[in-house]
Amino acid sequence: MPLVQVDLDRALFASRRDAISAAIHQAQIEALGIPANDKFQVFRPYDDGANRVRFNQRFAGRPNQIVIHLTMVRRYSVAVKMDLYRQILLNLGRIGIDPNDVHIPVVENGFEDWCAGLPS
Amino acid sequence: MPLVQVDLDRALFASRRDAISAAIHQAQIEALGIPANDKFQVFRPYDDGANRVRFNQRFAGRPNQIVIHLTMVRRYSVAVKMDLYRQILLNLGRIGIDPNDVHIPVVENGFEDWCAGLPS
Amino acid sequence: MPLVQVDLDRALFASRRDAISAAIHQAQIEALGIPANDKFQVFRPYDDGANRVRFNQRFAGRPNQIVIHLTMVRRYSVAVKMDLYRQILLNLGRIGIDPNDVHIPVVENGFEDWCAGLPS
Repeated sequence: MPLVQVDLDRALFASRRDAISAAIHQAQIEALGIPANDKFQVFRPYDDGANRVRFNQRFAGRPNQIVIHLTMVRRYSVAVKMDLYRQILLNLGRIGIDPNDVHIPVVENGFEDWCAGLPS
Repeated sequence: MPLVQVDLDRALFASRRDAISAAIHQAQIEALGIPANDKFQVFRPYDDGANRVRFNQRFAGRPNQIVIHLTMVRRYSVAVKMDLYRQILLNLGRIGIDPNDVHIPVVENGFEDWCAGLPS
Repeated sequence: MPLVQVDLDRALFASRRDAISAAIHQAQIEALGIPANDKFQVFRPYDDGANRVRFNQRFAGRPNQIVIHLTMVRRYSVAVKMDLYRQILLNLGRIGIDPNDVHIPVVENGFEDWCAGLPS
């Protein structure tokens, strides 16, 4: 059920979207133990990154910033979260994305805070 | 005060936006008891849905996926939330949207976590 | 670490983005005491505001609505939050934005809910 929302530059999205999608999903499968078919990702590519995404000066001129917003149930320990971050950074690093360009904010909710269509 | 943020395909947005807006709002009025004038919706239509929204294979080739993000005060019981989901699915079903294409994540906050202009 | 996500009309974004960015950031520095280099803002300009952002009738025909989504650690008192809102409204007012057009929802998380690249 974790919902993944990704803000990233349109050029990066165009060239690497499948690899980025897989990198994040694989990290969730391994660190959180979610089923492989529990994928729920929304990508939001943007133009004009220098105006759209405003971080501190350290990131000026770095076009590959990725913000990965995770919404997930309040059930994972701090250790599991740290492992999730580590695996996301590792997997994205393997496809050429600098871990220092990756930003992950997490927001938690409860099991009752999800509706995915009709009960199956 | 609930904030509604909707990700959906641009074609669906173009053809059904008023009906979708009303369907969600009416469900909130009935299930949550919010005042009719307490509407606060942000729509985010996207192009190229097959790349932008990546769910599991069950949703492949279904262009009418809607993700309805709700941010609302931590005050509603599980039963009220279930009723809200049911009414959203019902209302959207009436305008031809398959309930299985509707995804609703909820995030909660407190009364103090809202600022709507100056105190009136 | 607070993450700022701003929905606003593309025309307003084009004409005032730097001033809006600075107005929000300065309010966070003063009210929350965050370091000046802790800036983390994502802007989402939209076209066709009358369809994209649907608030109650009070806001009809007002093109300068701004929704400022704040994600921040659960550590600030109600008084600090009220001061933050006040300073954001004040700073935006100074650059010509009506405080009644500003909407701020806040979502909180924990210190462990952030990953910003590799540990430095």
